Amino acid sequence: MAVNSPLPVSADLKPVAGIELGYAEAGVRKANRKDLLVMKLAPGATIAGVFTLNRFCAAPVQVCKTHLEQATDAAPIRALVINTGNANAGTGEEGLARANATCAELAGLLGVKPEQVLPFSTGVILEPLPVERIKAGLPAAIANLKTDNWFAAAESIMTTDTQPKAASRTLTIGGKKVVMTGISKGAGMIKPNMATMLGYLAFDAKVPQALLNQLVKDAADQSFNCITIDGDTSTNDSFMLIATGAGELEITSADSAEYKELAAAVSALSQNLAHQIVRDGEGATKFIEVTVEDGKSVEECRKIAYSIGHSPLVKTAFFASDPNLGRILAAIGYAGVDDLDVSKLNLYLDDVWVAKNGGRNPDYKEEDGQRVMKKSEIVVRVKLARGTAKASIWTCDLSHDYVTINADYRS
Amino acid sequence: MAVNSPLPVSADLKPVAGIELGYAEAGVRKANRKDLLVMKLAPGATIAGVFTLNRFCAAPVQVCKTHLEQATDAAPIRALVINTGNANAGTGEEGLARANATCAELAGLLGVKPEQVLPFSTGVILEPLPVERIKAGLPAAIANLKTDNWFAAAESIMTTDTQPKAASRTLTIGGKKVVMTGISKGAGMIKPNMATMLGYLAFDAKVPQALLNQLVKDAADQSFNCITIDGDTSTNDSFMLIATGAGELEITSADSAEYKELAAAVSALSQNLAHQIVRDGEGATKFIEVTVEDGKSVEECRKIAYSIGHSPLVKTAFFASDPNLGRILAAIGYAGVDDLDVSKLNLYLDDVWVAKNGGRNPDYKEEDGQRVMKKSEIVVRVKLARGTAKASIWTCDLSHDYVTINADYRS
Repeated sequence: MAVNSPLPVSADLKPVAGIELGYAEAGVRKANRKDLLVMKLAPGATIAGVFTLNRFCAAPVQVCKTHLEQATDAAPIRALVINTGNANAGTGEEGLARANATCAELAGLLGVKPEQVLPFSTGVILEPLPVERIKAGLPAAIANLKTDNWFAAAESIMTTDTQPKAASRTLTIGGKKVVMTGISKGAGMIKPNMATMLGYLAFDAKVPQALLNQLVKDAADQSFNCITIDGDTSTNDSFMLIATGAGELEITSADSAEYKELAAAVSALSQNLAHQIVRDGEGATKFIEVTVEDGKSVEECRKIAYSIGHSPLVKTAFFASDPNLGRILAAIGYAGVDDLDVSKLNLYLDDVWVAKNGGRNPDYKEEDGQRVMKKSEIVVRVKLARGTAKASIWTCDLSHDYVTINADYRS
Repeated sequence: MAVNSPLPVSADLKPVAGIELGYAEAGVRKANRKDLLVMKLAPGATIAGVFTLNRFCAAPVQVCKTHLEQATDAAPIRALVINTGNANAGTGEEGLARANATCAELAGLLGVKPEQVLPFSTGVILEPLPVERIKAGLPAAIANLKTDNWFAAAESIMTTDTQPKAASRTLTIGGKKVVMTGISKGAGMIKPNMATMLGYLAFDAKVPQALLNQLVKDAADQSFNCITIDGDTSTNDSFMLIATGAGELEITSADSAEYKELAAAVSALSQNLAHQIVRDGEGATKFIEVTVEDGKSVEECRKIAYSIGHSPLVKTAFFASDPNLGRILAAIGYAGVDDLDVSKLNLYLDDVWVAKNGGRNPDYKEEDGQRVMKKSEIVVRVKLARGTAKASIWTCDLSHDYVTINADYRS
């Protein structure tokens, strides 16, 4: 299920010079589906990533971090390999060996070193990675490496996603053209036991490593780090940002207007990819933005926003289109902001002023709340009246289908 | 729905000398149901309580706290008044005025001061308390005050509970008889918008105020503070402990063996009442104990236990009887214990050793996990291998019925 029609996913996503994509059907878990993706970077590309904070971080995440640390100008990252069907998580030393074996195999085929390859896995946790099938699938993936394979790439990283997630944009910064394309996947921490969120965004500008490291963190903080479906943080979450450097624009300083424009565009496209994940959330029928304003800090605004976004009672009320708004107040109250003065708090649902100074707005009418709750896209806005900070998160409702999907026995 | 048969609730709960209970049908929200309860304490009783930490704490909770602070030996708390059908939460100044008016009315009828009455409300949030109906119902509740009304009292505080919750015990401490009886209610933060958990436990020993204050905190920490159904903390949660002093035992020191025996009995009975709430949890089909052992601190053990107990993915797996155990590892990993070494972690489901040193136990067989998951009572045991601390929490599964119950439009 997905909320409404999803954001438009164009089959003619724009190629980004300097990166080629090739997929294969390796039969990792099921036959006859694209489940293996190789991304090959041209010399000169830089790459940076952010990864799950889960202590049970998967073997490929550990290998990615090591290879990123070891990368040098002389021996930069040159390829990414992504498999679905198996997360290679909770697999111990043997899992690390298999992730490394995958890198070594691809490196051999491409004529680079194993440390120049980053591995990613998504799928079932606690089961051994079928590394022989992945190795066997690599030649086919390499054989169809093309710059215009983005849509197929988005399809090939899907697990229980009901639709591929991708976005593309061209823009002009300082008179120079920039092409930017990204893909993502994820739909809950995911049935069956899946280890979930992956995102890849490439653009053709040249960006020094230190700046790219900052850029990927900032973009994630404004996109993938602001979405929640069920509050479960996967063992495999990864978001990679690739600057191929094969285009016209070159960034040299974080203080330049060009950098700021580029960063804004990267954040916007990342947000688009993140929203696609929420819209395709397990069982989702509604897309909810929770914005908390006038807080003392972004952190406390986020705490409150996530408390609302994670509350099963709030989420079932959205599913039922029930303006059961005391549930939102209760979730604000237990968010852990200890000195919150609720008597100054105001709550809005879209344009409807629901709670005023901590109690029911005397002018609030149930039918107005009902009208908003029936919509498939809703903004919850909380005003704290204690500062100037603000944060937004995006989430979905909790439906019967969420339970059905996650209670299904692993197939 | 409730897990299995509930814990046995005897209709002949033992009267506790020094406390009388009277109920009425006040029509607070619906006609023809017990919805008003008065508890009258004899002179000499002491009382202490713990309350919700929700910042949107309800008007009656605020009044309770004030009256408990103002109570003196000369003017002690003499009565409690509890209504269902309306939580008097999110109601601002007017809510406080109505809670105070309820106290004043009961005080007038009993010949005590308003400050000697504690008010409690449970029910719908954000709606004005129908204080006139409650006042009108008080004479009938007073008319049937009896020491042996505990079962009717348990019924009269029910909201969406499917069964009354009560427990009773007599014991001998230092050669002296102690009678102890308690009631509780709650079943999720509760449809429709209810503000939920209430617990009352009385015994006939004499306990000085300072010790009782400590006793109620300790008992709550080992019982009501260790249960979770959906992670939503209500605006009205209250647990009151009453020492009538009308029996044989008198406690004078926290260092006495008698105090320790009494405290253990109070904790055990509180735990029993708390477990009844989980077993009657909204949509619950399974009763799950999560025990985390060998931690550095009780706090980190609780963090991990709650992370497991709150995970919708773990809860739906229990509902499905699916030994989808990577979900438990993932929940441990994101619990926020930053220096956790997962390679030393062991996980058991009842007697089945599932994960060994952070990975799948080579001897683990899926059919063994399946056998345990099919049971209606399951113990999840996590061993951290980093200390000697331990904590347990109790929770239930997440079923279709949870969504159905909470998505129902308020009736």
